[in-house]
Amino acid sequence: MPLDHTAKGVYVIATTPFLDDYAIDTKSIDRLTDFYAEAGSTGMTILGIMGEAPKLEATESIAIVKQVVGRTKLPVIVGVSAPGFAAMRSLARQSMDLGAAGVMIAPPSNLRTDDQIKNYYASAIEAIGDDIPFVIQDYPLTLTVVMTHGVIRDIVNAHSSCIMLKHEDWPGLEKITSLRKFQSAGEMRDISILCGNGGLFIDFEMERGADGAMTGYAFTDALADIVRLQAEGRRDEAHDLFDAHLPLIRYEQQQGVGLAARKYVLQKRGLITSDIQRKPAGTLSPKAREEIDYLLTRVAKHDPRAAL
Amino acid sequence: MPLDHTAKGVYVIATTPFLDDYAIDTKSIDRLTDFYAEAGSTGMTILGIMGEAPKLEATESIAIVKQVVGRTKLPVIVGVSAPGFAAMRSLARQSMDLGAAGVMIAPPSNLRTDDQIKNYYASAIEAIGDDIPFVIQDYPLTLTVVMTHGVIRDIVNAHSSCIMLKHEDWPGLEKITSLRKFQSAGEMRDISILCGNGGLFIDFEMERGADGAMTGYAFTDALADIVRLQAEGRRDEAHDLFDAHLPLIRYEQQQGVGLAARKYVLQKRGLITSDIQRKPAGTLSPKAREEIDYLLTRVAKHDPRAAL
Amino acid sequence: MPLDHTAKGVYVIATTPFLDDYAIDTKSIDRLTDFYAEAGSTGMTILGIMGEAPKLEATESIAIVKQVVGRTKLPVIVGVSAPGFAAMRSLARQSMDLGAAGVMIAPPSNLRTDDQIKNYYASAIEAIGDDIPFVIQDYPLTLTVVMTHGVIRDIVNAHSSCIMLKHEDWPGLEKITSLRKFQSAGEMRDISILCGNGGLFIDFEMERGADGAMTGYAFTDALADIVRLQAEGRRDEAHDLFDAHLPLIRYEQQQGVGLAARKYVLQKRGLITSDIQRKPAGTLSPKAREEIDYLLTRVAKHDPRAAL
Amino acid sequence: MPLDHTAKGVYVIATTPFLDDYAIDTKSIDRLTDFYAEAGSTGMTILGIMGEAPKLEATESIAIVKQVVGRTKLPVIVGVSAPGFAAMRSLARQSMDLGAAGVMIAPPSNLRTDDQIKNYYASAIEAIGDDIPFVIQDYPLTLTVVMTHGVIRDIVNAHSSCIMLKHEDWPGLEKITSLRKFQSAGEMRDISILCGNGGLFIDFEMERGADGAMTGYAFTDALADIVRLQAEGRRDEAHDLFDAHLPLIRYEQQQGVGLAARKYVLQKRGLITSDIQRKPAGTLSPKAREEIDYLLTRVAKHDPRAAL
Repeated sequence: MPLDHTAKGVYVIATTPFLDDYAIDTKSIDRLTDFYAEAGSTGMTILGIMGEAPKLEATESIAIVKQVVGRTKLPVIVGVSAPGFAAMRSLARQSMDLGAAGVMIAPPSNLRTDDQIKNYYASAIEAIGDDIPFVIQDYPLTLTVVMTHGVIRDIVNAHSSCIMLKHEDWPGLEKITSLRKFQSAGEMRDISILCGNGGLFIDFEMERGADGAMTGYAFTDALADIVRLQAEGRRDEAHDLFDAHLPLIRYEQQQGVGLAARKYVLQKRGLITSDIQRKPAGTLSPKAREEIDYLLTRVAKHDPRAAL
Repeated sequence: MPLDHTAKGVYVIATTPFLDDYAIDTKSIDRLTDFYAEAGSTGMTILGIMGEAPKLEATESIAIVKQVVGRTKLPVIVGVSAPGFAAMRSLARQSMDLGAAGVMIAPPSNLRTDDQIKNYYASAIEAIGDDIPFVIQDYPLTLTVVMTHGVIRDIVNAHSSCIMLKHEDWPGLEKITSLRKFQSAGEMRDISILCGNGGLFIDFEMERGADGAMTGYAFTDALADIVRLQAEGRRDEAHDLFDAHLPLIRYEQQQGVGLAARKYVLQKRGLITSDIQRKPAGTLSPKAREEIDYLLTRVAKHDPRAAL
Repeated sequence: MPLDHTAKGVYVIATTPFLDDYAIDTKSIDRLTDFYAEAGSTGMTILGIMGEAPKLEATESIAIVKQVVGRTKLPVIVGVSAPGFAAMRSLARQSMDLGAAGVMIAPPSNLRTDDQIKNYYASAIEAIGDDIPFVIQDYPLTLTVVMTHGVIRDIVNAHSSCIMLKHEDWPGLEKITSLRKFQSAGEMRDISILCGNGGLFIDFEMERGADGAMTGYAFTDALADIVRLQAEGRRDEAHDLFDAHLPLIRYEQQQGVGLAARKYVLQKRGLITSDIQRKPAGTLSPKAREEIDYLLTRVAKHDPRAAL
Repeated sequence: MPLDHTAKGVYVIATTPFLDDYAIDTKSIDRLTDFYAEAGSTGMTILGIMGEAPKLEATESIAIVKQVVGRTKLPVIVGVSAPGFAAMRSLARQSMDLGAAGVMIAPPSNLRTDDQIKNYYASAIEAIGDDIPFVIQDYPLTLTVVMTHGVIRDIVNAHSSCIMLKHEDWPGLEKITSLRKFQSAGEMRDISILCGNGGLFIDFEMERGADGAMTGYAFTDALADIVRLQAEGRRDEAHDLFDAHLPLIRYEQQQGVGLAARKYVLQKRGLITSDIQRKPAGTLSPKAREEIDYLLTRVAKHDPRAAL
């Protein structure tokens, strides 16, 4: 079933597990995929930046799509960002044929002006076809491309297949408010807004009108609870749980070493066999691992799931 | 008394208060200066990025140096970063004549290679004179200049007047460890390391060997307590206090609107008359002010100083 | 007489000459100023990037404005770009009081989106006042800010005091065509377009609709002839003269060392006493000076003014 | 025969020709490949940035390598730059198996410090194997990575398989001189230096010690003559021919539209069937085509090969 603008909850950014010889760890993919559903995810996003997509060969990417889509009942979004449209089209169409629910497209980092960004999405949609639901990835901290709310509105309105924003602007609370105002004023079609940045602002993002999270924080279950509590209007409880996890969320959100921290925790949780990444990759020093262990002990005082 | 490498504690990054007509608010400068000392600061840093230094005219900058140095017994570091060395020299020498303890120099954002960075500092010190204690500001997130620990070591060793690092790399925990290893191996002169980034990692930075903080988080008093607790080896207590403030620290650390949040809290604390900034400036929406108020209420459960 | 949109010809970007001790060389300023008029310039632009403006103290900048405006009958545009609006306003208003014809404003390098650029100019004009004719400097290669023709149109239409574009986009021929189409379609007020980039494309820029050049190529006289020949419709003659100078124009257009090359030639022409720049500065190796000498010999075969 | 450090002359950066439906034009590949040899090239570089490599699918890249290597007797260098090492290794090893002479690797644009650049090349060589001769691509204008001559020396000395520099720094004359000094002082192994940037400085680059050109200027034959004349010490003749082509070289060197200009000329020369590029691509307006036609007429006065 293809994705539409009513998507909500937690679309987890799936990690790609490797074995110590850098081969793809298919057993851990199954285990992780099962866990994500049990943890309360409402969808999955694979082959994103944090999924080490640029480090995969084309055939590996397709194999992962096939495996995950075959394993889970959750809707699966596939990251198809690529330096060229030929590779993007190829991965997008094959993914949909395999049963993916939609694709995610990030802008290349050389785009600067509003028109460049809008033209890029127009060309991308022309390449992949306008029948594939797609997600805009708005992540200026890493991609260095800055999209105003007006640019996002124009892309949404120009392409009926645009059904979601991965909101990862930083800071970005006002952007959510502005986009929702466009919708309520009838100036923009309804879209789903799911937030990234490791969850660092998910407490308030939900209050600003986000539909949930799309990020890979190692406690997907806690993230799902925070999103659910906010959706139910239980503000204080949501913040209490969020605050308990914030020291670790913050630690995982460090550029460069964040993924190493995330994989370390996933490994401690027994979800992946090895925390190795393909190169180039940041690594954790023994001191950093000790820091994460200490943080887990502290989180566990409030959330027993962190007692590893 | 000039600054040396034994500096520790909290060197607060002082906000520059303005009146609603954008004139410098000298009364609030006195009030803030007094507060910073009472709050446990061991030093002050004025005319930094967060002090809106680039928005001041040359004569205003000098007037602020004069007022603050005349008001406080704390050592005062003056930010003298400038597009050219003539202006840098002028401000540095006048500041020292007025009684400043040292100066801080950030690299211009066009520097890329190791040699460019080292040459820049060599030229800057040639310009201001090698008799003025200076602080390296290492802030890649905003300045886009990336300094390795090896580059910092070379600058320290090349200039005996270099006595401190404002450590604001992100992430930067391993950098502190690397620099302290240089020192213990006798490969680098001793320097003071004070950390910025709004305090977002001050909990672990102290454990990695930092001497304290140099940042402007609106609860200078809490920051001083965290630094003191860590210096005394009271790890859990330090983290408890840090964690209580982290949701607000995180909120204040948003690029662009962070200073608006900080000034809003300082105004609520009665320390400055207006939270206005000179343009260009980020501003807080009513919703954002409500979010900060909510965060203050939550922080106040653990730290009564936040009950405003 | 204030500047208006009918400006044309060559507004030379004036070099700031220094003595070997880095003091401002006032005698050379007079000599250069006189030369620029004799060479056929129709205006002068002082305190630009190539005029080493960021390396001057505020009082030095004012002194230069005073001297140049007092010396020449040509209209003088003053570069007032500054990190903050207080300094920008101060220099702009003092310059106009001293008799300048207008000011030039470059966007700070952190601007990305269309709205950010338009808002910046709105704030700048609010700061300096809407009674001062101003020039937009569009120089993405150095400033890293990319302005579309639509953004320029919006700035022009929003501010009646905007009377000129210093066109320095690279490549930028189509931008001139697009802006002139806006004008002929009645979508943009008339403005003057003068081109920079050292003259590297002035041959075709004139054919695309530019009104002239605003650049500092050391042969102002040749540049004035090329612009004049094109204005008179003598295409082949203009290209012949341009082609003869192109090897040197290209050499002078190298980032970093271009100004050193330019000052070297100006010194050889007897127009400035020393070719020294304030730091930081690129320098010419003996081999580079030999290369320029060789190029001058070759240019001199077609243009005797290069026989030095 | 694998590439070594004695390579010299013109290694042409081959254009990838497409048909109007964006399919790869294999007939034109044969024609171009034959032409390049007849034009005096001593080698070919395929799948570079100007060869639109990022727009190809993996299978297309391999097919092109196979075709070109099978067609020509010239040594063929294959651009293998990729976002991840898995894809880089795969293309590199397959290319060598098919008979390529070596590979070219550009650094990813997020690298900043000297160590980051050196570590990147170490990881890349670990990935592809140290038995494949490789070329460093140093192209800061497009890649935004700045390598000092010291960094290049360290990479060369660390990897015996590094046998060539594609020198495309801008400006870069002093860098050639510095690298040759390293060699003569015994501080760096001998390498071949071939220069890019469309040939914009090839006149002086040869005099500084370059071994030739590696660029795709549409008059490969003229480029080969310039390089040969300089190698024979016929300085004035080399500059005469260079100067005749410089107006067109400069036009072709415009970022964004340069490739469109180059393909337009190649098409006019009858070497490729269509001048179309895969998206995203710059295009030529009718006015731009007229400008190129005019330039060709002017070049033809000195070099009859431009009379098309």
